[in-house]
Amino acid sequence: MSKANDPSLKSWIKIPDDSDFPIQNLPFGVFKTEYLEAAAGVAIGEYVLDLTYLHENGFLDGLELPPGIFNQSCLTSFIGLGKKITSSVRERVSELLQHDNDELQQNKPARELALIPQAEVEMLMPVSVANYTDFYSSIEHATNVGTMFRDPDNALLPNWRHLPVGYHGRASSIIPSGVDIKRPKGQTKAPDADKPSFGASKRLDFELEMAFITCKENGLGNAVSTSEAEDYIFGFVLFNDWSARDVQVWEYVPLGPFLAKSFASSISPWIVTMDALVPFRVDGPEQEPEVLPYLKFEGQKNFDINLQVFIQPEQGDEDLVSKSNFKYMYWNVNQQLAHQTVNGCNIQVGDMYASGTISGPTPDSYGSMLELAWKGTRPIKLSDGSERKFIEDGDTVIIRGFAENEGVRIGFGEVRSKVLPAD
Amino acid sequence: MSKANDPSLKSWIKIPDDSDFPIQNLPFGVFKTEYLEAAAGVAIGEYVLDLTYLHENGFLDGLELPPGIFNQSCLTSFIGLGKKITSSVRERVSELLQHDNDELQQNKPARELALIPQAEVEMLMPVSVANYTDFYSSIEHATNVGTMFRDPDNALLPNWRHLPVGYHGRASSIIPSGVDIKRPKGQTKAPDADKPSFGASKRLDFELEMAFITCKENGLGNAVSTSEAEDYIFGFVLFNDWSARDVQVWEYVPLGPFLAKSFASSISPWIVTMDALVPFRVDGPEQEPEVLPYLKFEGQKNFDINLQVFIQPEQGDEDLVSKSNFKYMYWNVNQQLAHQTVNGCNIQVGDMYASGTISGPTPDSYGSMLELAWKGTRPIKLSDGSERKFIEDGDTVIIRGFAENEGVRIGFGEVRSKVLPAD
Repeated sequence: MSKANDPSLKSWIKIPDDSDFPIQNLPFGVFKTEYLEAAAGVAIGEYVLDLTYLHENGFLDGLELPPGIFNQSCLTSFIGLGKKITSSVRERVSELLQHDNDELQQNKPARELALIPQAEVEMLMPVSVANYTDFYSSIEHATNVGTMFRDPDNALLPNWRHLPVGYHGRASSIIPSGVDIKRPKGQTKAPDADKPSFGASKRLDFELEMAFITCKENGLGNAVSTSEAEDYIFGFVLFNDWSARDVQVWEYVPLGPFLAKSFASSISPWIVTMDALVPFRVDGPEQEPEVLPYLKFEGQKNFDINLQVFIQPEQGDEDLVSKSNFKYMYWNVNQQLAHQTVNGCNIQVGDMYASGTISGPTPDSYGSMLELAWKGTRPIKLSDGSERKFIEDGDTVIIRGFAENEGVRIGFGEVRSKVLPAD
Repeated sequence: MSKANDPSLKSWIKIPDDSDFPIQNLPFGVFKTEYLEAAAGVAIGEYVLDLTYLHENGFLDGLELPPGIFNQSCLTSFIGLGKKITSSVRERVSELLQHDNDELQQNKPARELALIPQAEVEMLMPVSVANYTDFYSSIEHATNVGTMFRDPDNALLPNWRHLPVGYHGRASSIIPSGVDIKRPKGQTKAPDADKPSFGASKRLDFELEMAFITCKENGLGNAVSTSEAEDYIFGFVLFNDWSARDVQVWEYVPLGPFLAKSFASSISPWIVTMDALVPFRVDGPEQEPEVLPYLKFEGQKNFDINLQVFIQPEQGDEDLVSKSNFKYMYWNVNQQLAHQTVNGCNIQVGDMYASGTISGPTPDSYGSMLELAWKGTRPIKLSDGSERKFIEDGDTVIIRGFAENEGVRIGFGEVRSKVLPAD
């Protein structure tokens, strides 16, 4: 295990007990301030550590970093340096923040310039998303959807247990936490109508997902095996795959979801590294029938990450509406990447691969309103007395996630988005 | 009409009679030579006109061009300047090449440096594709596919005549003409098999398409109307949407095509501008039933562009296997862009929007082997005596396209790709 993951490590920076960002985490992101247009940073407790400052002032000397690598509008160039270098930066940042290290701790001017309160920054997109795939890898979610829309006795389609079903999504409309979304308009057709109509979606939904971000190219024509896949994965974010269900049901046959999804997808801005998540590996569900050889893998490839969804009505309090876990994924990220590339498809640095809705086995662990309110038949009650079948104008949807083990909490922060009315 | 489109214009450069690149065309592309890594150029006759040279030597003065705008690995920055500027560059290049203009013609050193024989350059991707959508806008193609795989009496799905069906494709694997493709591997399942198997695709197909490239951003949340759409369209290329039919049929329900398409899509390298195609506008097919208001449009929005597909077996001659036309498109590009953005989806500079397979009304105008050989039931005979149900290893597929009017031929060049065996 990496030294930076040692649960006994303490920082000289005061970390609140419930912080997502202890010294064992050190996720990377891009922030702006009143004075800085965009720069790379690491989250530590309630602060952002400014990597540009550290780099320009010699604190990262010897790590083979090109000039200006952190003073950019996204992390793509940095993560493209490869995991050997990016992991060494995380290790070095860990060292600088350890309670017995004086380099920054005892250098008051440097310390004050390098550490910026998170309350004073705005977080931006960590990468300019090169390509975006959305998988459909939770068996509970696929079963729920199949039960609702097709046949409860044959809820899973024939291909589902043989390959990680996925589709290409829209990269341009992936936005960071804090950016409001507008209710989309589109074509819908009521089952009993003889023609479609146009208007604001009446069935706006969230989807609780996680996504991984790639840091290495394979080159067109070269498959990535399950055992190589982790070399390509820099880290993870929380992902809200906003969905207009009424648009989706009218448009998606035969070529899949399109405008029902492409109006916005929201992510948490800190990329929690694969390195930081190593202590939280667990086995995934048993796969039956046996998968084809290119999808076989060795070791524990799922991650025990608690996931929560909250709805906060305008003027209201946050209501916890779902508790799920990334460990429920039937298909793991190694298999997803092996499948994505088995035809020779090329991975780029800064690609995003989302999990698909992560539903657990119980009704309080479902990852979408579609499932939680079961197609509108079992509305959810919120603490202000109101009910929800889908998401309403003024609602803020918040997804949070964290792994926890031996007293160490590796958190993702949150992805928070408010829904504004359609124009 | 733009002065540069005047059919009577002649250049001082000798243009072969059958050239795709007379002075009325002037398409933009990115080329490399032994000495130049990547630079923007314009095709004229059998030459590439080096825009970097023209710009750096004062021939484009007064056109509001930033320094270094042509000395880049792709045209994205240039086309992002907007059509006012890019059209003025085309007009100025036209002026410089006209037979009665002496500026370049009589400046031998400049002329010799600015004009490079096309035979001495390698054409690269004209843009780094930001987002890629593939539509499904030919009614003949959709009807053929529906007839083969579903019900001949209800070949079109209920949504087809109400919206331009489309899906997001893989941007990373779009490659230029001249790059070989490897036969992809993947999962397939024979109808009578009880489980899938893995191997090289046995049903590799081309799809005859065209694609437009965008040059303007709308900003997330803002729809682009059909009347505004052309401000966003810089120009067009030929597009071969390589497809592995046996992979597709197993994977595509319910989320659409994925690995069946993402191994490669090939494009012609010269972007023929919307400006150059204005003289070739024609009416499209009548749309019945009437479309929703956001899909209504005024004027002629289809283009009369002849399209041809050739198969050249290893060691053999080119065989013309299909003659189609871009004018057959049921949904035009203005409607496609209006539909793509009606939910607020944001367009980026350098997006690519492909038409979907362009089939005409007769069997010799179908745009894929699937249709030409009718699912393998009517193999095509080639001039070397061999037959084709799908594309075989060693075959080169060539798509060419040109518009022709009043003795002026506006051509696209070609997209040519050879199929190599799977590893």
